[in-house]
Amino acid sequence: MITVLKPNTTKEQQDHLIKWFEERGLGVHISEGQDYTVLGLIGDTSKIDVSLIESLSMVDSVKRVSEPYKQCSRKFHPEDTVIEVGNTKIGGGNFAVIAGPCSVESEEQLTTIAEDVKRSGATMLRGGAFKPRTSPYSFQGLRADGIELLMKAKEKTGLPIVTEIMNADHLPLFKDVDVIQVGARNMQNFELLKELGKTDKVILLKRGLANTFTELLMSAEYILSEGNQNVILCERGIRTFETYTRNTLDLSAVPVLHELTHLPVVIDPSHATGMSRLVPPMAMAAAACGADGIMVEVHNNPACALCDGAQSLTPAQFDEMLKKVTKIREVL
Amino acid sequence: MITVLKPNTTKEQQDHLIKWFEERGLGVHISEGQDYTVLGLIGDTSKIDVSLIESLSMVDSVKRVSEPYKQCSRKFHPEDTVIEVGNTKIGGGNFAVIAGPCSVESEEQLTTIAEDVKRSGATMLRGGAFKPRTSPYSFQGLRADGIELLMKAKEKTGLPIVTEIMNADHLPLFKDVDVIQVGARNMQNFELLKELGKTDKVILLKRGLANTFTELLMSAEYILSEGNQNVILCERGIRTFETYTRNTLDLSAVPVLHELTHLPVVIDPSHATGMSRLVPPMAMAAAACGADGIMVEVHNNPACALCDGAQSLTPAQFDEMLKKVTKIREVL
Amino acid sequence: MITVLKPNTTKEQQDHLIKWFEERGLGVHISEGQDYTVLGLIGDTSKIDVSLIESLSMVDSVKRVSEPYKQCSRKFHPEDTVIEVGNTKIGGGNFAVIAGPCSVESEEQLTTIAEDVKRSGATMLRGGAFKPRTSPYSFQGLRADGIELLMKAKEKTGLPIVTEIMNADHLPLFKDVDVIQVGARNMQNFELLKELGKTDKVILLKRGLANTFTELLMSAEYILSEGNQNVILCERGIRTFETYTRNTLDLSAVPVLHELTHLPVVIDPSHATGMSRLVPPMAMAAAACGADGIMVEVHNNPACALCDGAQSLTPAQFDEMLKKVTKIREVL
Amino acid sequence: MITVLKPNTTKEQQDHLIKWFEERGLGVHISEGQDYTVLGLIGDTSKIDVSLIESLSMVDSVKRVSEPYKQCSRKFHPEDTVIEVGNTKIGGGNFAVIAGPCSVESEEQLTTIAEDVKRSGATMLRGGAFKPRTSPYSFQGLRADGIELLMKAKEKTGLPIVTEIMNADHLPLFKDVDVIQVGARNMQNFELLKELGKTDKVILLKRGLANTFTELLMSAEYILSEGNQNVILCERGIRTFETYTRNTLDLSAVPVLHELTHLPVVIDPSHATGMSRLVPPMAMAAAACGADGIMVEVHNNPACALCDGAQSLTPAQFDEMLKKVTKIREVL
Repeated sequence: MITVLKPNTTKEQQDHLIKWFEERGLGVHISEGQDYTVLGLIGDTSKIDVSLIESLSMVDSVKRVSEPYKQCSRKFHPEDTVIEVGNTKIGGGNFAVIAGPCSVESEEQLTTIAEDVKRSGATMLRGGAFKPRTSPYSFQGLRADGIELLMKAKEKTGLPIVTEIMNADHLPLFKDVDVIQVGARNMQNFELLKELGKTDKVILLKRGLANTFTELLMSAEYILSEGNQNVILCERGIRTFETYTRNTLDLSAVPVLHELTHLPVVIDPSHATGMSRLVPPMAMAAAACGADGIMVEVHNNPACALCDGAQSLTPAQFDEMLKKVTKIREVL
Repeated sequence: MITVLKPNTTKEQQDHLIKWFEERGLGVHISEGQDYTVLGLIGDTSKIDVSLIESLSMVDSVKRVSEPYKQCSRKFHPEDTVIEVGNTKIGGGNFAVIAGPCSVESEEQLTTIAEDVKRSGATMLRGGAFKPRTSPYSFQGLRADGIELLMKAKEKTGLPIVTEIMNADHLPLFKDVDVIQVGARNMQNFELLKELGKTDKVILLKRGLANTFTELLMSAEYILSEGNQNVILCERGIRTFETYTRNTLDLSAVPVLHELTHLPVVIDPSHATGMSRLVPPMAMAAAACGADGIMVEVHNNPACALCDGAQSLTPAQFDEMLKKVTKIREVL
Repeated sequence: MITVLKPNTTKEQQDHLIKWFEERGLGVHISEGQDYTVLGLIGDTSKIDVSLIESLSMVDSVKRVSEPYKQCSRKFHPEDTVIEVGNTKIGGGNFAVIAGPCSVESEEQLTTIAEDVKRSGATMLRGGAFKPRTSPYSFQGLRADGIELLMKAKEKTGLPIVTEIMNADHLPLFKDVDVIQVGARNMQNFELLKELGKTDKVILLKRGLANTFTELLMSAEYILSEGNQNVILCERGIRTFETYTRNTLDLSAVPVLHELTHLPVVIDPSHATGMSRLVPPMAMAAAACGADGIMVEVHNNPACALCDGAQSLTPAQFDEMLKKVTKIREVL
Repeated sequence: MITVLKPNTTKEQQDHLIKWFEERGLGVHISEGQDYTVLGLIGDTSKIDVSLIESLSMVDSVKRVSEPYKQCSRKFHPEDTVIEVGNTKIGGGNFAVIAGPCSVESEEQLTTIAEDVKRSGATMLRGGAFKPRTSPYSFQGLRADGIELLMKAKEKTGLPIVTEIMNADHLPLFKDVDVIQVGARNMQNFELLKELGKTDKVILLKRGLANTFTELLMSAEYILSEGNQNVILCERGIRTFETYTRNTLDLSAVPVLHELTHLPVVIDPSHATGMSRLVPPMAMAAAACGADGIMVEVHNNPACALCDGAQSLTPAQFDEMLKKVTKIREVL
């Protein structure tokens, strides 16, 4: 960590700060420039609060040179992490296709979709049982009943299950769930992350609406540091000034996260764009830039013409898209 | 709610959608334009999922004309809500001054600051016991011990206590806390909001880093709809492209929220700017545009020159600032 | 255009507004809802200033149902625009590969790169002569001399030239330039756009750092409405809260703009990411989601090991990338 | 400037980079850390392109310790700049009240408003003659005729005139204008800035929609470095994810810019919020945090009830607001 002191810092202030660093077990290397003095800190700075140091009146700026995360970092774990989920894998060249309905609605709905997406090549089934909703008046999901329906679909199709948790108290309900999803709004629910770190479940951690890559990795580090190494990262769009799409899908997340961490990276084009017609091009782009998987919404409700065109693809659209995605992966 | 259909929508599709609305108990008023058809929905549309409708291929756009929140809305509750906290009030012309250290560290630290800020005119004492930290390796607060120290400071000074909760399971620890704070990162932790709605505690709800005014009010609605009417809203800076300040303080929140809701609105310039020298000008600006209170960090650690200039003001700086804030309030 | 009036609007105010619309040649269709009255405007509303109407105290909100652009709109021009540039084409299935150095430095530099990229398959040569620089103290480009060097490289290689203009007064210097680029910072320099609209040059219009798709199309409309139909749109990254990459590349621009307009859409991954190692994955993603071309920086300076790894690719990296891009395009 | 090298940088690469810096006249101070090597650059680094260095594969990060601007910097010019405009002043404790209509429409309109705002205490008259409009089909202003009307209003009232320029070719028309405004969309129209730097006019430079404080100061530096020291900075709202207000007014600009520069800082609450009812609270907040002036839209069109409530205040609202603003300034 590098701390740049302001030109008018007194010798006494500087000594005070150096002593404070030293009391925390750090070595300090002083480099006097023309206008500024730079303190180079040597040792484990991961416990130092950058924003505290930054806010000191004598400090011009602070710069971390080593990442504040360790277990997530590719530096300390150069090989790709490969995670086994049921009889399938993700990471290190293994591509996951996670598909299913936005919300679990009924046994018939779920089983039909599960069979359809399996036939097309999906490797996992997704479906929301607990639904985080902006409004308290919106449908909050089938909750425990939804999990049961997911288990039935798993039995019938053999597809591992991915579903979202909103409260650590619900963990017992998730004992047979294969992948527990942490939604964007809970990415910094640190109490939940710690509890998930104590389990041996695979965790799919979504990037928050306004969170940086570093913050995403720090949240993953909460899980890893408690002992659970099975974390999949997911980019699902960030909030920007553009309102035409629901969010802005940041595909640079794929090569950037691959550089910084060994954890697999999945793209969710359904939530990112909010429009089914944008899902296939964005899923193909995700495959082209090296994503370890995609997560897409598929519905199957022939009785409901209403749903046509929604954020979810039909099974036929999903099938066609997956064929192209597969061909693009062969190019890489 | 208004739904605009695309020019190429067939009669059959249109009828299908109208039927779907009618099945949900809504009246539909059809208005045929030159290029577009507009459906005006009559009745309670608060349970309709706008993003679902928006994503239909036949739909050009959807526009809510009534707010998706009810109990928060000034339309249904024209008078300002006045909330009593201990022997003090906030809202309806009552100005709250919430001050104290970022983290609770020791009995001596807390009591000294509490006495100092009380002398200057603070009406409530803030202090973090449970600390949400980006990194799992950072100090996570004194937790239960911190709450005990806050209770001691309350006994000595009589100041009501404001402190943050991160997990509904901790609620028993907060039984003597006067105001329970929900931090920005938990603004959409809906499970936590529901639990707080079942208590009779005053809740201080902070705006999320990338959340709109409407989303903030929807989160407040989660609390109100469970029966708890005692909610204070807090603007504490939003995330933008500008990195000079920690966040961008959006002071228009004050007049905008006063228009939309009857709940009191407090400004936190310490977290918004991250720099103590920006706190006084922003606190004065908050008072000038009609805020119902300010929430500022104050430290008192003569042994630690290090802290000088941090996000926190010294008691002397706080005292000087509060004198000006008071005079500005007299102008209004 | 739809105008929603607030509940407390008086009959007199409403009549006043309706008269105002009618004086502007619009028909008004009134639809009275339970709480709100909706005015549907019939006729050419493209000259109506939405923000003026929106800011009226009686108005709740305004919604355009037809786009404010006409000549850009795919609605009025369903087929893809195909633009001929020298002996090459862009749009309607023709993929453009625009490559070259960031700045024109010398004849040798430019010619060597031009020959290299042509050999790999580039269809146009880019190079900056006039450079928009944040700082007045930075190198401002070779200016007129740079344009001359570009002309020499064109003579030798036959590659059409793409270079940026910053001032309409410089237009005479651009008489032999094939494609005139308008940079992100000038996207809303409306005086410049109007002048370019009076020429018959091909214009490559870059999206501004914080401009929406609609604003980009309105700026294109400035050019088309003056008579010049030869406009290529370019997405080059938008400004968001994420600082790891220089900007956030918004690849959804490709399918969204293809929906809204008939003009070709090119992606510039070099400026969007600012890091050469991110250029190949993002260029492949651009091809996979249907872009009409890519624009990448390539340098060739074996004497300057310094440049290795910069925003620019080496000719060898460019060659390797282009092979994969070509294969991905074959999948589509 | 500090350059941090990556751990795996070879001695040869490091020497190459050091040589490159030395060739540019910089001294290099090497500091070897445990994992990283830090190069401290000594000398005038303002001409070094940070983004070039940052993009080198061997470089972890680059940090400027001195600002890239010089003439704007308070470090080199500690006293506030006071600018005389006609018989009034701005800066160094002098508060400017710039008021007038959005667009100049007619002699009667302009003169009436000018007289009204003068009576209330305005010190300058604003009015748009050249109007930057997103759409080519919107009213583009009275242009040269508008400037003439402004001159007539100046004659009658004695108020100095503030009006916007969009093209350096129009400079002759501005010879009697007192303050030339550069709009947000032209903040990085560097060719225009250079031309304005060669004049002796007072320039009011608006912050771009997505530009940082540093970029605003770099644009001011373009003007100062050409010899014109008369620059007023103006914050007018930035673009964020929040859409309720037209833009997000960043009032921290006032204390931050006062720290960084000696130039006066003005706030424009009319454009920032887009709603007249938000203008008075934001203008009062601007005064409370120390702004050197406000710029507000006032209209006076009794025949047009339509305009009531628009972004512009009525003269009566303006008068009432200004009384409060004056009282707040007395508190400081």
